[in-house]
Amino acid sequence: MSHNTFGHLFRVTTFGESHGPAIGCVVDGCPPGLALTAADIQGFLDKRKPGQSRFTTQRREPDEVKIMSGVFEDERSGGQRTTGTPIMLMIENVDQRSKDYSDIRDKYRPGHADYTYDAKYGIRDYRGGGRSSARETASRVAGGAVARKVISGVSVRGALVQIGPHRIDRKNWDWAEVDNNPFFCPDAKAAQLWEGYLDSVRKAGSSCGAVIEVTASGVPAGWGAPIYGKLDAELASAMMSINAVKGVEVGDGFASAALSGEENADQIRMRHGKPEFTSNHAGGILGGISSGQDIVVRFAVKPTSSILTPRQTVTKSGEDSDIITKGRHDPCVGIRAVPVGEAMMAIVLADQFLRHRGQVG
Amino acid sequence: MSHNTFGHLFRVTTFGESHGPAIGCVVDGCPPGLALTAADIQGFLDKRKPGQSRFTTQRREPDEVKIMSGVFEDERSGGQRTTGTPIMLMIENVDQRSKDYSDIRDKYRPGHADYTYDAKYGIRDYRGGGRSSARETASRVAGGAVARKVISGVSVRGALVQIGPHRIDRKNWDWAEVDNNPFFCPDAKAAQLWEGYLDSVRKAGSSCGAVIEVTASGVPAGWGAPIYGKLDAELASAMMSINAVKGVEVGDGFASAALSGEENADQIRMRHGKPEFTSNHAGGILGGISSGQDIVVRFAVKPTSSILTPRQTVTKSGEDSDIITKGRHDPCVGIRAVPVGEAMMAIVLADQFLRHRGQVG
Amino acid sequence: MSHNTFGHLFRVTTFGESHGPAIGCVVDGCPPGLALTAADIQGFLDKRKPGQSRFTTQRREPDEVKIMSGVFEDERSGGQRTTGTPIMLMIENVDQRSKDYSDIRDKYRPGHADYTYDAKYGIRDYRGGGRSSARETASRVAGGAVARKVISGVSVRGALVQIGPHRIDRKNWDWAEVDNNPFFCPDAKAAQLWEGYLDSVRKAGSSCGAVIEVTASGVPAGWGAPIYGKLDAELASAMMSINAVKGVEVGDGFASAALSGEENADQIRMRHGKPEFTSNHAGGILGGISSGQDIVVRFAVKPTSSILTPRQTVTKSGEDSDIITKGRHDPCVGIRAVPVGEAMMAIVLADQFLRHRGQVG
Amino acid sequence: MSHNTFGHLFRVTTFGESHGPAIGCVVDGCPPGLALTAADIQGFLDKRKPGQSRFTTQRREPDEVKIMSGVFEDERSGGQRTTGTPIMLMIENVDQRSKDYSDIRDKYRPGHADYTYDAKYGIRDYRGGGRSSARETASRVAGGAVARKVISGVSVRGALVQIGPHRIDRKNWDWAEVDNNPFFCPDAKAAQLWEGYLDSVRKAGSSCGAVIEVTASGVPAGWGAPIYGKLDAELASAMMSINAVKGVEVGDGFASAALSGEENADQIRMRHGKPEFTSNHAGGILGGISSGQDIVVRFAVKPTSSILTPRQTVTKSGEDSDIITKGRHDPCVGIRAVPVGEAMMAIVLADQFLRHRGQVG
Repeated sequence: MSHNTFGHLFRVTTFGESHGPAIGCVVDGCPPGLALTAADIQGFLDKRKPGQSRFTTQRREPDEVKIMSGVFEDERSGGQRTTGTPIMLMIENVDQRSKDYSDIRDKYRPGHADYTYDAKYGIRDYRGGGRSSARETASRVAGGAVARKVISGVSVRGALVQIGPHRIDRKNWDWAEVDNNPFFCPDAKAAQLWEGYLDSVRKAGSSCGAVIEVTASGVPAGWGAPIYGKLDAELASAMMSINAVKGVEVGDGFASAALSGEENADQIRMRHGKPEFTSNHAGGILGGISSGQDIVVRFAVKPTSSILTPRQTVTKSGEDSDIITKGRHDPCVGIRAVPVGEAMMAIVLADQFLRHRGQVG
Repeated sequence: MSHNTFGHLFRVTTFGESHGPAIGCVVDGCPPGLALTAADIQGFLDKRKPGQSRFTTQRREPDEVKIMSGVFEDERSGGQRTTGTPIMLMIENVDQRSKDYSDIRDKYRPGHADYTYDAKYGIRDYRGGGRSSARETASRVAGGAVARKVISGVSVRGALVQIGPHRIDRKNWDWAEVDNNPFFCPDAKAAQLWEGYLDSVRKAGSSCGAVIEVTASGVPAGWGAPIYGKLDAELASAMMSINAVKGVEVGDGFASAALSGEENADQIRMRHGKPEFTSNHAGGILGGISSGQDIVVRFAVKPTSSILTPRQTVTKSGEDSDIITKGRHDPCVGIRAVPVGEAMMAIVLADQFLRHRGQVG
Repeated sequence: MSHNTFGHLFRVTTFGESHGPAIGCVVDGCPPGLALTAADIQGFLDKRKPGQSRFTTQRREPDEVKIMSGVFEDERSGGQRTTGTPIMLMIENVDQRSKDYSDIRDKYRPGHADYTYDAKYGIRDYRGGGRSSARETASRVAGGAVARKVISGVSVRGALVQIGPHRIDRKNWDWAEVDNNPFFCPDAKAAQLWEGYLDSVRKAGSSCGAVIEVTASGVPAGWGAPIYGKLDAELASAMMSINAVKGVEVGDGFASAALSGEENADQIRMRHGKPEFTSNHAGGILGGISSGQDIVVRFAVKPTSSILTPRQTVTKSGEDSDIITKGRHDPCVGIRAVPVGEAMMAIVLADQFLRHRGQVG
Repeated sequence: MSHNTFGHLFRVTTFGESHGPAIGCVVDGCPPGLALTAADIQGFLDKRKPGQSRFTTQRREPDEVKIMSGVFEDERSGGQRTTGTPIMLMIENVDQRSKDYSDIRDKYRPGHADYTYDAKYGIRDYRGGGRSSARETASRVAGGAVARKVISGVSVRGALVQIGPHRIDRKNWDWAEVDNNPFFCPDAKAAQLWEGYLDSVRKAGSSCGAVIEVTASGVPAGWGAPIYGKLDAELASAMMSINAVKGVEVGDGFASAALSGEENADQIRMRHGKPEFTSNHAGGILGGISSGQDIVVRFAVKPTSSILTPRQTVTKSGEDSDIITKGRHDPCVGIRAVPVGEAMMAIVLADQFLRHRGQVG
């Protein structure tokens, strides 16, 4: 998990800036022999792609992925397969609108990484946020699509469960609804209300936050590892590393603090010859190791910092100033964070699966 | 962050089980020349030590640390100093009460790692929880004490801000109160109420959860790194790796989802010739890099799973059964998690500081 | 050093196959603010480029490098500079001659990695050796050019000191000669003899091995680290990882076994106010840490396995067979290993420099 | 391979100084369920133990190992077994003879790490060489004994093949002889001659070097990995990290440079239904991956730097001086390097085995 690489055996190294020639990643350690084509990856990128509704940025990026290495189609193998060598995935940047960047070049946008990048590096690619742009998350989604192949028995799904202060009603949860609205919302009724809410936010030039829930079904008991390699610790790191995320919880999360021991600890019964838990307050993880239940993770995304209201800031040369962040921004970056959260879940699980197989066989 | 090692340049590897001969850690990568004696470490261990009030486990462990390597007192150096080589810290287990473990040997305690360890490894040191025991956190506290020496300009402090459903009143926050009550509670009034609450929990043989807040003051702008090495991502991993933790948040955390962009993004003004933020919703981290403000992290601890109420479970051989977890348990493990959270904060910061110095100078 | 990544703080991850669309690398952890253009890299690639004399493969690859990320030219910065984010370097494959690969698809070439790749992965990109092709070393040279910028006070130079059984006369050593002959040979007289020798090897359809010596001058005392992070251990790993390398030695290397303790240990005298060694049997490294003397490493390259003499082998389906390896091969891959060895030296030193700065400041 | 940790999945972290209270290691990532007692480890430590003949140091260290964690004897498991958690192995230092260290405190012993440690860290535990003492290799031997359990089908054996300028006659090679002489020499006749030679070296207060060969039989084809994780690259790093080692080679090593392609590349024939090589110039590794043949590695050890002849050196404060290194030293540290080389071979193979199993299954 060092700088721009995530994972130990299944390793994703990303590169690229918002307005450079391309972004992408190198996936190292992938098992050989998995069927993999660009089309397998493209579907997930399309979910994250900007400009798919009026609720996301209007930047026009086809986000077309190319597999540059690590796959091979032998005439005898029945289609293109991974070879076990590094898989480089590249997405060219297309819509780098040329514009005057002098404003964000010289001023630090509140809530953005402008100030801290300058404080750290003394230099900053300010065009579209450079490396700190959420555009980097496309590389994660591409890597995540490969990870899904590695854990083919596992189903990873995400949904938006809160936008601004508005939560879904969990009784209405229907996974089938997630693709029926522009929010990845599993509650059809909530989705309808959100549309009006987000329109008003958008029109006000403001922004709002969100909470995303990602679930993995089909993970067998035994993945993960004590102590610092805990499955939940790595999921926390994975989700918190996504742009604008400020909180992560597993299972009942923060709410578990208010429960009693009796309420919280999931009891076990034999069913069909194997142990089953009668509840899932733990979110599928005990002692950092999967229990066989659904893995359930939630993360909170702060409101987009790019808003049309003037905000107080300072210039690089140390003068008080004001700034308005114009441009093509998501009023709620949390929406497009859903496929990103899914990708990070898949990457963590793929890596933990290989490590588990390595140690235990 | 692999299995039992935390960190990249400043690396803490822990070992040991609850009822083995000793626990401890190897701290690798520590800068040379730092004054370090066992007494420097012991004070922090004493904060975490069991049996200090009726609200923590009555196991009697002196938790006396020995420095086994990595320090040297040259007659010319004015006291014992780190040499830059691995510092092994060892804490002998003293109070391993001999008892009949057949119950937890054969049955999986709900909420514990018993089942998942068996599912993963097929073998389990069941005495006192073995490696999954919270006793392991003493090793972290020892490692954290060394980390504090590395970041000597930074002040790391923790406090309990919620126990069960009862939160502190932040208006009453007084760091000086933290050491005046058995809860590390910064709100004297709340601490008094908690005493009654926790007594009732304890007498009922039940347990409760808690929320801990850890703050680091004095971190300069520039520590941390994009993308997967983000300071907040590593803090999330660090805190989530502590026993029983189910959620982590930075700054406003989950609450930020409900804020507007205007409310959330911290504005900046020049003050005394340098940029200062007018608020700290971000918890001192922007784009994964410290901003110079206080780093603020909270984490939620679930209620202790060891309770006196009988719970449904299964045996190793696959039969339905019931279990009561007797023994000397903390009614709220969150209390002793305060010094552990501080230690993990210090370790993350020490590692990030060295990595920052490595890359940027 | 895991699979396709080399280094800890300065990390080079390479990707790409001989006959895929492109090869390249991601350089992570590079310090910010270094002047870096494609031209800075191209010069080193040109030294390694095929087809520059009749003694190297006639494959025609321009090996033109493109910097895809990690640099930025601010109008105020006086030229393009590194930003501290991942530098992706890409080299498109141009001369992938379409041909019938059925022979090497079905048969294992002796001395090649064909058999072991199949044994490991069960699938193999056989076109031009795929990932095991020496073409991968172009990525290392590109990464090494960036590394040189990081250690700008250090001069890294390589030379061929033996080809087949023919060694140079060290008394004739002249660094200026290295660029005057097609062998990177520092002994003009030897280079002349080698020409005739290698012509005869080439015409016989045979091949020969070589020994390369790489020197780094200007490394200050103190880089490197005990025990497993020793400078010489990492150099050994770096050089041995180059295609066809079978041995590595530092300083007097294997010859030191036959010396007495009196002959071997380099004595020290004060000169111009600082310690200087009166000899350099150690090759500039003591206890895994640089001593301030020249770092001297040699590595042996085995003869190219692709030869025109028929050799016994087996087919993938398990039948005895014979094989001739036609195509455009280097009669001595050791020649083009010189810039590769330089690159690996630079990468190891850049990484050790940053790690040293991280730990010690 | 960072500083004091070796390996990726099977990880050995060592600690301790020559004259501190103890040395040892933490073995992390070991598979669960392996039978392991202190006796399994002790046998290998005894081979390395000082004072076993007049040809090694007369320091009296019992080198008794204690297993401090990571094993458990369940009444049902039939003996003590690994649990998959960190195995801490500790060896107390017993014979730390108190003496006047002022000479080596103030002067740098030529050929030793005294000067470079001071240059790096500014502080140095000079008692017996501190961390740079070959005493650290006992920790490796202990870790190697655990590694052997992981690769139980593999036989790892080492032998001394050269002492000073005197090589064995390979025609006399007999593994059974290795334990019949104080040199681990497989050539009984050579061993006899060496006795006289080493006696004369010892009596002259001088020292000599050696070459060790380590072989692993029973490694299946497929272990290892391109590009930087090559089996030979990691063996090179492992062997070069041993104290006083100056060169490493695999198979024919440096001699392969003088061979022709026809001589060097090992041909293959089907035998008993599977591919077999007709020679082993490659030392069992092709493209960084094991071929199923014996893995053969050799490494050169320089002569012990501690000799009785006065040598020129400088003091810490910068004055020319002379030094004699008295004390209890091995006239040839290469002898006791044999079990250390075996241990490093076992550790590399155990780690590569687990990584292979992780990626490929």
